Amino acid sequence: MNVVELIVTKREGGSLTGSEVQQLVEAYTAGNVPDYQMSSFLMASFLNGLSEEESVALTDAMLRSGETVDLSAIPGIKVDKHSTGGVGDKVSLILAPIVAACGVPVPMISGRGLGHTGGTLDKLESIPGFNTQLDIEAYKKQLHDLGIVLIGQTAEIAPADRKLYALRDVTGTVEFIPFIAASIMSKKLAEGIDALVLDVKCGSGAFMKTEESGRELAEKLVGIGERFGKKTVALLTDMSTPLGRAVGNWPEMEESIRCLKGESVEDLMEVTMALAAEMIVLGGVEKDLAGASALAREAISSGKALKLFRQLVERQFGDARVVDRPEIRRSESRVRTVMAPVGTGPYVHSIDAHSIGKATVALGAGRQSKEDDVDPLAGIYLLKKESEHVAPGEPLVELYATSEERFKETEEAVLSSFSYTESPFSVRSRLLNRYSDGRWMHPAGHRCV
Amino acid sequence: MNVVELIVTKREGGSLTGSEVQQLVEAYTAGNVPDYQMSSFLMASFLNGLSEEESVALTDAMLRSGETVDLSAIPGIKVDKHSTGGVGDKVSLILAPIVAACGVPVPMISGRGLGHTGGTLDKLESIPGFNTQLDIEAYKKQLHDLGIVLIGQTAEIAPADRKLYALRDVTGTVEFIPFIAASIMSKKLAEGIDALVLDVKCGSGAFMKTEESGRELAEKLVGIGERFGKKTVALLTDMSTPLGRAVGNWPEMEESIRCLKGESVEDLMEVTMALAAEMIVLGGVEKDLAGASALAREAISSGKALKLFRQLVERQFGDARVVDRPEIRRSESRVRTVMAPVGTGPYVHSIDAHSIGKATVALGAGRQSKEDDVDPLAGIYLLKKESEHVAPGEPLVELYATSEERFKETEEAVLSSFSYTESPFSVRSRLLNRYSDGRWMHPAGHRCV
Repeated sequence: MNVVELIVTKREGGSLTGSEVQQLVEAYTAGNVPDYQMSSFLMASFLNGLSEEESVALTDAMLRSGETVDLSAIPGIKVDKHSTGGVGDKVSLILAPIVAACGVPVPMISGRGLGHTGGTLDKLESIPGFNTQLDIEAYKKQLHDLGIVLIGQTAEIAPADRKLYALRDVTGTVEFIPFIAASIMSKKLAEGIDALVLDVKCGSGAFMKTEESGRELAEKLVGIGERFGKKTVALLTDMSTPLGRAVGNWPEMEESIRCLKGESVEDLMEVTMALAAEMIVLGGVEKDLAGASALAREAISSGKALKLFRQLVERQFGDARVVDRPEIRRSESRVRTVMAPVGTGPYVHSIDAHSIGKATVALGAGRQSKEDDVDPLAGIYLLKKESEHVAPGEPLVELYATSEERFKETEEAVLSSFSYTESPFSVRSRLLNRYSDGRWMHPAGHRCV
Repeated sequence: MNVVELIVTKREGGSLTGSEVQQLVEAYTAGNVPDYQMSSFLMASFLNGLSEEESVALTDAMLRSGETVDLSAIPGIKVDKHSTGGVGDKVSLILAPIVAACGVPVPMISGRGLGHTGGTLDKLESIPGFNTQLDIEAYKKQLHDLGIVLIGQTAEIAPADRKLYALRDVTGTVEFIPFIAASIMSKKLAEGIDALVLDVKCGSGAFMKTEESGRELAEKLVGIGERFGKKTVALLTDMSTPLGRAVGNWPEMEESIRCLKGESVEDLMEVTMALAAEMIVLGGVEKDLAGASALAREAISSGKALKLFRQLVERQFGDARVVDRPEIRRSESRVRTVMAPVGTGPYVHSIDAHSIGKATVALGAGRQSKEDDVDPLAGIYLLKKESEHVAPGEPLVELYATSEERFKETEEAVLSSFSYTESPFSVRSRLLNRYSDGRWMHPAGHRCV
């Protein structure tokens, strides 16, 4: 293999064979191709594109760079969900117990938050004692025993992805759909799942800012999933405004627990239930989405999903008392209630997800770099959401942080992320589109709350 | 400075400011920007282009990365020539003594051969003892005393260029005109010259394969020269066929000495004399090209150029006896005369410069990598050139090498680089075009042999 020739091929707009991609990634992971050649290759690919075959080969090479988990000994069709990330996106915390309570085994390997979006692992770890670092054997055993397991990525899975991601991060080659897709899918395919539901978010609070780029990513992800023989469905959902009312690790955990207890946070549960129905159908428990939706609602109303979540917390060494009385943990944080200023209202028109995400990081809930610690209690609670009536002087948001300093630094940004309108209006659905079997179809039929 | 932001700006098709380019190159040269970021930046620039301002800033940053020689204490307008390189291009060896003999100081810093083209330094060093590694003080003193000096690049000049070139070489980012132009001009501008003539070669034996890309490079080079206040003229010359009859280090040196003695090798002297006239005019010795041509011819016929060359060789510790009797040095090499095979002729139509260049390297005259030694005597002598009559069985070329093995490996390639035609024809001029003061003008008036 002549690496310069491979780079020049991409530079000149050509395509590599699957075996050339495989060799390149193998040699890079083994340290036989230096970073400076790989970054040149990445930039040439970014600017000239990767073919379908190259994308699949890249995913395959990253997948094969580490261990792949074999879950075939566990009965049932194992289904996972992956979200491309957004502000207030705590869907996994509610969704996984619902789907597992309906009889579909859910093996979920999640990531940490980086930038303005949160990560499921950080949210789980806001429960005192919760351990996300199980090894593969413990992961398999818990899935077998409980039907649900939520852990962080282990070192054995897709090491090429970690090495490539670290390089992309410092060489301006992050925001390229085939790389994003290969990174996501190589890890998901290594988990041992049989089917996958994707929540591809678009809007200011997501990595994909436009619906168009979201569609492109969804098609790429589903295409790769299908090429690896996994039934894959993608929902395209709106992330221009935070999902639910809580943003931050514990605030989102508390909101999730309350949803599991039957409280309805409309936009959040709309997305959660749509994804749950897809997973239940893929898991072979129901034949159609309507039946699956009914089953999912039943899992909440019967308390089965909540009970399973409590078992999950105990099994992974978390303090389950916070599941019973979440408000106690919230009260451990310093809180500041911010009032709607003069001249605002009468209706909230929109809340910019990206600004809220950045303000949440500034409150201490997120990371500026990978080594940073997060404050599990920090965050924002939106007392008013889009379309809701608000008068000057009424409470608008609650901020949580460890110091007054942090409140001062963020209050202005939080206030200016709100815009207002004169007239009442209906909030539009979060569900923008649905992609499976090579077709886009508006998911109107999914609205289940 | 945020390097990732600079990379992303280029990736997205934007432009950097001059000061951003300056900072980036400075930080890279100082080791504060790693190779993997620089290579990503280079590829993004390669694919999305560099603006005029970015090109000038890049040249300036590379120039400033090292020492710049101050020749202002030496009287006269100092003029150098740079060729973009070709097969059989020994023009500097004949040109520099002619121009210096006409009273124009010629400070020339040259490079080594790499790939299929030769380098002036290797040709000079084929003279036993010749020292091309003078330091800056010795360089200035010799220019002052003799009016001519031919050395290799010193470590003090444009270190950023060396570091960047080494990176480009292994990251598929060599063949990009703004990089090529910045690399050439940063070194030439650091030499202390007042004016520069460029021989931009195009055709199979040159780096620029087409006339169009040659024109683009010429315009870029002249544009940069003018931006730095140096009068710069470019001639675009044909390099589809080897220049002169000799290819290889000593073979080319011998041909050059014979030209200095008054022998005419038509295509070689056409190019040499055209460049000489440009340099003499730029040096302020003559007002127009016709007068300058006459003066250059006089430098040959009077023996002044040859005498100066002999002094140059002695001054730089070379054995000047080879200047007097070059055929003795040639006889030190093993030689193979290759006959024209059956079915060839009757007229040589063309000789592919690239194949001849590669065959010369295979005979031992060039480098596959920078560390390789070269055989000073190895090479090819074309007994027949374009338009000349040849019959099967007549001697076609002479090969020089240290072993029969080398002859065997190259003979076939040399033979197949010849093509033939049925009818006699006139060889076209090597001088394709001339660029100065922002205008292209056909240099017909320059034909002086």
